[in-house]
This record gives sequence, structure tokens and C-alpha cells, in this order.
Amino acid sequence: MDLDDLDTPSLVIDLNTLERNIGEMAAVARGAGVGLRPHTKTHKSPEIARMQLDAGATGITVAKLGEADVMADAGLDDLLIAFPLVGERKLERLRELLERARVRVSLDAVEVAEGVGRVGKELGRDVPVLVEVDTGLHRMGREAGDPSARLAVDIAGVPGVEVVGLLTHAGHAYRAGDPEELRTIATREAVDVLDTAERCEREGLSIREISVGSTPTARVAATVHGVTEIRPGTYVFNDVQQMRLGIATEESCAVRVLATVVARPTAERFLIDGGTKSFSSDGGDGPPFPGRGVVAGRPDLVLDFMSEEHGVGHLVGDAELRIGERLEVLPLHVCSTVNLFDVAFGIRSRVVEREIAIAARGKVQ
Amino acid sequence: MDLDDLDTPSLVIDLNTLERNIGEMAAVARGAGVGLRPHTKTHKSPEIARMQLDAGATGITVAKLGEADVMADAGLDDLLIAFPLVGERKLERLRELLERARVRVSLDAVEVAEGVGRVGKELGRDVPVLVEVDTGLHRMGREAGDPSARLAVDIAGVPGVEVVGLLTHAGHAYRAGDPEELRTIATREAVDVLDTAERCEREGLSIREISVGSTPTARVAATVHGVTEIRPGTYVFNDVQQMRLGIATEESCAVRVLATVVARPTAERFLIDGGTKSFSSDGGDGPPFPGRGVVAGRPDLVLDFMSEEHGVGHLVGDAELRIGERLEVLPLHVCSTVNLFDVAFGIRSRVVEREIAIAARGKVQ
Repeated sequence: MDLDDLDTPSLVIDLNTLERNIGEMAAVARGAGVGLRPHTKTHKSPEIARMQLDAGATGITVAKLGEADVMADAGLDDLLIAFPLVGERKLERLRELLERARVRVSLDAVEVAEGVGRVGKELGRDVPVLVEVDTGLHRMGREAGDPSARLAVDIAGVPGVEVVGLLTHAGHAYRAGDPEELRTIATREAVDVLDTAERCEREGLSIREISVGSTPTARVAATVHGVTEIRPGTYVFNDVQQMRLGIATEESCAVRVLATVVARPTAERFLIDGGTKSFSSDGGDGPPFPGRGVVAGRPDLVLDFMSEEHGVGHLVGDAELRIGERLEVLPLHVCSTVNLFDVAFGIRSRVVEREIAIAARGKVQ
Repeated sequence: MDLDDLDTPSLVIDLNTLERNIGEMAAVARGAGVGLRPHTKTHKSPEIARMQLDAGATGITVAKLGEADVMADAGLDDLLIAFPLVGERKLERLRELLERARVRVSLDAVEVAEGVGRVGKELGRDVPVLVEVDTGLHRMGREAGDPSARLAVDIAGVPGVEVVGLLTHAGHAYRAGDPEELRTIATREAVDVLDTAERCEREGLSIREISVGSTPTARVAATVHGVTEIRPGTYVFNDVQQMRLGIATEESCAVRVLATVVARPTAERFLIDGGTKSFSSDGGDGPPFPGRGVVAGRPDLVLDFMSEEHGVGHLVGDAELRIGERLEVLPLHVCSTVNLFDVAFGIRSRVVEREIAIAARGKVQ
């Protein structure tokens, strides 16, 4: 089957690019002497997680228990659930999962640790936890430094859990204005967590794992002495957000939404058969890649807005485009795009090599 | 099973509110003497489409062939596919669908009509089409008036199709600054299409159907003499966007995402276990309902931003909130929220009465 045989809109993964991206980040981690625990929220596919492990990843990260279940069902082991598990149903499910896979969880509160600790006590072994530290995103965690060190010491006192490390997510890197600011955020992300770990050590709490690094920051953070693992996710596919940050190029973007031109109502306007239900509304607009997605190989086509099923754009200069033509559109934020599809098509040189199940799509619980 | 027994995040539909919303719009259409062909993109559920038909809807609208297939599989008939069908694969599928259900399609180009017409010729009967008119959204369609009338006449000349009507979607109503502007847009939506129809009649093309009206405009547009059908979708559930437009209230919003408070990292900040993968990134911020969703019954909690799995908010004044509490969050744009879940829970007075399959979720083809 060829790319031309696919109905549209379809989610397409270029396998050569995917393999190159996986290999490149594995080499970054190897070169820096740190572990690579990729965040699988980007692809939600056990098959691609397996490719990452085969290339040298030391384990995987998931956001939700439901994603962990899918990965464990596929035989994947050594999972970090980078999300606080709260409520009896979640703790029952954690217990079931711990009986069949090695699992660690991150959290930022003593109450949450107490719930997880009850599971550990029932199982007769401590559940490994990482304490989340706020390095500037202001989402989870207390401030880096003493506030987080005190929290880690308190959590270490909870029966049934073992504090094995500190973790942060510097998501504010996505707001970096230029490469210099991005580099500063990436360095601070690592340095601030290492400083927190030192304060823990002074309080008698030994910290083994320093887990940092998203796709925009991982290459820099990995080189900071003391970091033990990086957790990038998006690198596996890349997207326009990464292109805008200078982290990726059109050539290193592995995922495209294949779409058909379905209308040309005016000389300038065109419509494709994919909107926010194929791309998501994630990601803003921004130079040097304007629009709600980048049409691969067609800088003369700009996507201006999307409704649920329509993508609406305009032609630049003397561009030509007719109804029925197919376009490959790079999404702004690939993680949310992938989460809208149940299956992706893995292609090599326009030939569809295999279908890839997005098995953890929608597993928000 | 009770609301408290559901794991989170879960998509919850209040059945009393749903039934009331369905009944109210059916009464609007009945009172105005127009047909009601609700857009099922909002719920993507044959079960709810059936409730709408039982309350008096005259047919249903879908955006995509894949949605039409799901509805036809469930025995629903008289479907409008409000999207141009382009490409051989789509036309094959249209042909298959036409063999088992009454279907009409909308489009805005002679080339598209020619493809649909080939299907009609193969089947030996004309495919009913509605010509889409641009009444200000600047998405599909030519300008209302002569440009659209000329197009309709041209399409009427295509063998294998029958132009049965004109259709518009005044999606720019969502940008209305106040109720007066909204009323003006709603009236113009109907008047402009009726004017276009008159010009068609003058050219000898009789127009039977005048299909207008989304949730913000349907109640007004239905009352314009000559309109034959309205196609609102969101009214079935309502959402914060409709509340901001003055069309809905918290009480008339039927859908909530049930979420758990999973972190309280600072005195002011809280996190829930639902982010853009449970709500979508659709919808901006805006008075008088600030934030990335409205926490039902808790005006003292404001959701400031979402990442994929985290919703991050702050407490107002002396609000109290502890880890483990559950919140019911009204989404900004319910259509995109529903499309992230495979199943919804229909509740009545906090008791889970039944599961409702979102059977057409993700059917973007």
C-alpha cells in the first residue's frame, strides 16, 4: 500500500525519521552517561516504546496509570508514572500493576505518599517514589531548594515508600524567547534539582536519581554533572513547536497528518479535511513558521484557522492548489495530535510498511 | 453505581439536563414551523441522536462519512453530511452508504459535485446536495447573493446531483461581542441565504431547503420566514462558550468532566488530574467565566492553565480545597471534550444510570 492509497485525514509516521530521532537521543544520553527514560505520552504506542528500549532507553515514563497498564500489557517493564496517584480506585490499580511490573511514581505531597505507602505496606515492599520539584513551571512541586528538600525528608518518613530521587519538568522551556534563554532554563532545571538533592543529603536523605529533561532541555540538562536520567518525549516525532524553538527541522519531524484539499472557495482560500479533531487546538502561532500547522514542502500555503473538521488556509503569492490534492501537514503539538487517532501508518519512502496502534490513546485515567 | 464510584477523569452527562435541552430545542423548531436536523458532532453517539429524533428531530447532521457510517450502523436514517466529499475512496464509501440510508451532502464547488454526481449516475438516482453559502465565517462557500446563486445554478447542471437547498454555518457568531451583535448575525445568516435562494429562483432554480442555525443562532434564525431547517449541535450539552455568549447557564450544561484534586503545592495553587487530553485546548478565556473551564458550584476555584494531563488552578479568597476532593468541571468547548472519550456516564441525581458509547469518536475520515 502506498501513501496515495490512504484515506484522509490519516496519521502518518515516517519510519526513517522516527528511527533517526530515537537513535539520536539515545546517543545523547549515552554520550552524557545518563539514563534515558522517554516519556511515552507522545506516541502512546508500546511498539514505539519497544523501539526506544531497543535503542538503549533504560525504562519508560507514562503520565497515567491507564497508559502504564497498556505498556505493561505489552510486556514493557520499569515504568515511571510521572503523576500523583490519588484515590482508592487508583491505589487499587497501582497495587495490581506493582504485582506485574517494576513501577516508580512521582508526587509532591505527604498525603499522596501516605496512600502509595499503604500499597507498599500491603505488598510488603516499599514503593519507589521521586519527589517532584518546581524549577519554574509552577505546576507540580514546591520551590527548589529548602522547601523541596524538607518535603522530600517528610516523604521519606512515610512508611511503605522509598524516596529514590528527585524529578522536575521544566515545561516553561516552551516559553523561551531564544536559544540562550532555553539553555539557561535547561541548565537551571538540572542545577536547581541537584542543589535540592544536596540539601536532602545534608538532612541525611540520600538521593540516587536526578530525573530531568524534556525535549527542549534534555540535550543540555544531560550534560550537567550529577544528573542521572532524562525524560524527553516529543523528540521521537518532533513538531512545529520544536521547530519554533530551534530544536527540530521539517526533516526531523516524523509525523504528518495526510489531508485532502476539499474546497477552494476563493482565489486565495483553501480548505483541508482536517481540523482540531485531527490536529487539536494546542500550540499558538509564531514565527518563523506561521499558521496552525506547517504544510510540508509548501511554504506557499499557510493554515490560518481550524474548526473541528475544517482546516482553512490561504495561498501565498502565485501558489497553485486544486481540489483533490493531498497535503502533508506537520502538527503544532504532536502529542495531542497523536492522541486523536487510534492508528498511525508507518511509512518508508511513501510505502506503508505497517500500522502502528496508538494503544494508550485516551487513557487519561 | 454512584458518581463517587467513578474513576477520574470521567466524562459525565446529566440526563435530566440532556433531556431538557433536547426538548427545548425541539420546541423551538416546532414553534417556528421548521425542521430540526441536529449536528451530532457534539455527542457522536447514536443513542443520543435517537433521543433527538424521538423528541421530533427530522433527521441528523454529521461532519464526516465515518460519523455517518456509525449512525447508519445504528439504524439511523436521513443523514446530512455537511462536508464536501472528495477523492475516490470517499466516493466509494458514499456509494456504499447511499445503498443503505437516505443521505444528502453539502458542498461548494462544481468539481466536488461532479464526483458526487458520478455516484448518483452509478446508482441511477440523483444525490441530493445542498450548496454551502458563506454568510460571514469565510470558511466554506462563496459570498451570499449572486456569487452563490451562480454556483448553485452551475451545480444544478451537473448530472447525477439534485440541488435541494442552500446551507450555511454562521460560525462567526462565536465571536459576537454582545447579544445584539449575535442577534444581527443570526438574522443575517437566514436573510442572506434566503436572498441567495431568491436569486436562484430568478435563474429558474427552485430551492426547497434553507438550512441554517447553529446553537448560538438557531433560536433567532428559525423565526425568519422561509427558513426550513436548523442544525444546532452544541445545545444538547451546552458548555462555557455558550455561557459566555449568554446562550446557556451552569444549570443547562449537561456535561462535566469529573476530576480529582491531586496536588496542592502552594497555599493558592491546586491541580486536577485532567488537562488538555481530557478537555482539549479549544476555547479562549473570557468574562464573566474566567479560566480553562468552570468548576461547577465553585466560583472560588479558577483553572488557570492546562498541560496534557494536569489542570492547574488557584483558590480565590478564603477558599478551601484538599487533595482527594472531586470537582465537576464544565468544559469550554464540549464537542472537542467529548471527542477525547470513548464512553460517557449518564447520571441522574448522582446515580450512574447508564454508559453511553461515544461511538463516532475519532471518526475524522
